Amino acid sequence: MAPLGVLAYARQHRTRFLAELKEFVRFPSVSSHARHAGDVKKCAAWLAGHLRRVGMESVKVAPTRGHPIVYAAWQRAPNRPTVLVYGHYDVMPVDPLGEWHTPPFEPAVRGEDLYGRGACDDEGQLFTHVKALESYLKSARALPVNVKCLFEGEEEIDSPNLAPFVARNKSMLSADAAVMSDTRMLAPDRPAIGYSQRGALLVELEVEGPQQDLHSGNFGGAVHNPLQALCEMIATLHDARGRIAIPGFYDAVRRWSGTERDYMARTGPADAQILKDARAKRSWGERGYSLYERTTIRPSLDLHGVVGGYQGAGIKTVIPARALAKLTFRLVPDQDADEVARQFREHIARVTPPTVRSTVRFPSSAKPALVNRDDPAVRAAAFACRKGFGSPAVFLRSGGTVPVVNTFREILGIPTVLMGFALPDNRIHAPNEKFHLPNFYNGIATCIWFLAAAGATLQRARRAQGELAWSVSDDR
Amino acid sequence: MAPLGVLAYARQHRTRFLAELKEFVRFPSVSSHARHAGDVKKCAAWLAGHLRRVGMESVKVAPTRGHPIVYAAWQRAPNRPTVLVYGHYDVMPVDPLGEWHTPPFEPAVRGEDLYGRGACDDEGQLFTHVKALESYLKSARALPVNVKCLFEGEEEIDSPNLAPFVARNKSMLSADAAVMSDTRMLAPDRPAIGYSQRGALLVELEVEGPQQDLHSGNFGGAVHNPLQALCEMIATLHDARGRIAIPGFYDAVRRWSGTERDYMARTGPADAQILKDARAKRSWGERGYSLYERTTIRPSLDLHGVVGGYQGAGIKTVIPARALAKLTFRLVPDQDADEVARQFREHIARVTPPTVRSTVRFPSSAKPALVNRDDPAVRAAAFACRKGFGSPAVFLRSGGTVPVVNTFREILGIPTVLMGFALPDNRIHAPNEKFHLPNFYNGIATCIWFLAAAGATLQRARRAQGELAWSVSDDR
Repeated sequence: MAPLGVLAYARQHRTRFLAELKEFVRFPSVSSHARHAGDVKKCAAWLAGHLRRVGMESVKVAPTRGHPIVYAAWQRAPNRPTVLVYGHYDVMPVDPLGEWHTPPFEPAVRGEDLYGRGACDDEGQLFTHVKALESYLKSARALPVNVKCLFEGEEEIDSPNLAPFVARNKSMLSADAAVMSDTRMLAPDRPAIGYSQRGALLVELEVEGPQQDLHSGNFGGAVHNPLQALCEMIATLHDARGRIAIPGFYDAVRRWSGTERDYMARTGPADAQILKDARAKRSWGERGYSLYERTTIRPSLDLHGVVGGYQGAGIKTVIPARALAKLTFRLVPDQDADEVARQFREHIARVTPPTVRSTVRFPSSAKPALVNRDDPAVRAAAFACRKGFGSPAVFLRSGGTVPVVNTFREILGIPTVLMGFALPDNRIHAPNEKFHLPNFYNGIATCIWFLAAAGATLQRARRAQGELAWSVSDDR
Repeated sequence: MAPLGVLAYARQHRTRFLAELKEFVRFPSVSSHARHAGDVKKCAAWLAGHLRRVGMESVKVAPTRGHPIVYAAWQRAPNRPTVLVYGHYDVMPVDPLGEWHTPPFEPAVRGEDLYGRGACDDEGQLFTHVKALESYLKSARALPVNVKCLFEGEEEIDSPNLAPFVARNKSMLSADAAVMSDTRMLAPDRPAIGYSQRGALLVELEVEGPQQDLHSGNFGGAVHNPLQALCEMIATLHDARGRIAIPGFYDAVRRWSGTERDYMARTGPADAQILKDARAKRSWGERGYSLYERTTIRPSLDLHGVVGGYQGAGIKTVIPARALAKLTFRLVPDQDADEVARQFREHIARVTPPTVRSTVRFPSSAKPALVNRDDPAVRAAAFACRKGFGSPAVFLRSGGTVPVVNTFREILGIPTVLMGFALPDNRIHAPNEKFHLPNFYNGIATCIWFLAAAGATLQRARRAQGELAWSVSDDR
């Protein structure tokens, strides 16, 4: 069953694959900025054309209320299982632009890395699957399983149109399992399969004071500065020891067994490694937990930006009329986003001084998720990683959130394999994002092995039972 | 001595004066933005040309390391005193632009107000003096005193080049007193003369954490978010009762006699008026002081903006590498800016957690100032206000800071009369800045009367003694 000819094809065409990835990264497909809508569309069209060229069928660029979804399929193995390959071709904004060493949309190879916005998250990782499909289709003229591709353009803005699209197209998207590469490994020789991810609850907290901006000389000392009040309210969200200070917040957080925590300590990154990856000198946060635990099985709350007043060059001695904070809770089993939203709202009501007004909004949320490590698709991925990278995969928890995992579980009833090729220092979402090229090539090989193995493991599982293993409540 | 012909000229030409003021306001002379440097220069050239046309002499646009200074003089009364007229033709930035009802640099009259950035602060007020000079020169062919004009283009960025210019040109600028209109009255029929202003100490507080922005999913909970740490530090700057919580901060603050506080209560705006002017529902700040007192004889500390992380549209779940706050202390007699800077630096060192690094900078400062109400130039202004507005002037404290008052006192050894025509609701520094047109016309009349009266009072004072009355320490 070893797909040797397919792997040989992939090896032979590495130079072209890299050139094509650079073409892909060159699109400024920033989904959150309206002015880039045209670029996102062009990127989708390019990807669709590319899928056609590599031999995928039924390719289409499906419009949504936002950015389009690219779909493709190969279904010429009627009695075999189907794998749904998910990825996203949209990227994060690039600011602060001044901190990039080379322009974010002019991909550049330095050393063994490809630099550029999207090089890793997720264009580069998505592309490993496309190149695996090409390698099979061009060298073997067939895939070992049926494959459907679903590549969206709104992952970085929380996929507002993905779940509706999936719900409208359930039969078109039906599959036995989904696979995606948008998570991290521990090191170039330590492949990893995600089996846990934190959920997320996005928060906007707005504070309003006077009806317009005021001159601080004239009014400073007589009205409560809404920006100051906002900072004072934000300061109540954590205690001095780094715990979230919202009453009841930790009540639902699952306490893990010693066995699980031992496994994590054995397989996960050490504190020193996480600090190195973060390029941070000092750790912070809840005592009694390793940094790996703090970022995976413990919830967090982060402030991303404060809007209001004057942020430009020079000086403007203003008392702003209003101020807005953008925050995200990272949630873990068994926290419920609605309950956390309620707790946050009540806390803010309690700490809002009578001298200002506050408003709380929750633009979106995603549930935490866990995968059963014995799921047949996961076993196929573990096998593929060992073959593709030459060493066994560790099962890794991720601190981030991949909402699509919940979408696929809830609407299609299938598990999603998180087989990511990002490294912890790839600076995703930050300036100088990069993709480690050995991971690109080994990733392609891994995707090839995954297609080969998934046929077998999913087929056996179908026969055995067909029971689906993804859930937030199993694997306790 | 009543300058009746001069006043008649001013009345006759109101329509043209307003049209000229609109021309003046039309320049986007935003001194803090490098991209407007050309506009500032054009505005200076226009103003210089205008001064020449109204009959002023020795007009020049003097370059500085920043924006130019416009100078003009009329010195054809060799044995009479000299008045130095100061103003600034630069304006504040206009953001948030979306809140303007009409474009900030397309001046528009609605009701009795002229709307536009700079309509009031300070182009409109500066222009009252220019039109008074024109009225004299065109109708009487002479001024009752010698006059020098000094109009700068950097007041809104704290006049970095004014003091060096004044120091280099002491003899060119020598005068008996300075006058400026860049402060407020209480109401259209209640002219005011400023006799006290707060000082200012500008502060930048920067907090740094990891060496680059991080993904909050991957690292949230393991590193101290610098933006959150900044908010936590800002929250330590005030206590729950609105007092500044920096140890020793109030030690040097002068305690005023009951007589002075009674005068303030009698002449100053009531709390309700100040809240109405601020369009704020609730007051805030130090108990035991009226809002007028809180904004004039009590110090304050205001937060103008927080830079760092993500402020754009959409979502970016980032842990910013650094965050910066811009703040201003308003200082009162007998606080010393250096001492407050030292206290702030020590406080920040104390409240900076070991998980981040903080830096404190003080871009500039200005001393608080008081004027002796018996100063001859002040008496001339009081007389002029009564004639120009038809009701006696109140002596008013200002919460803002006019650093030039200190510059003139320290370098030229002269007092500055603060004879402002702004109303509390003119929204200076805010969207929809406006100038009340009756104040424009009465302001011109007042400036005419001031020129007439200053000749007499300053002449008498010269004979009597020549002692200068401005100081921070008199009038106790």
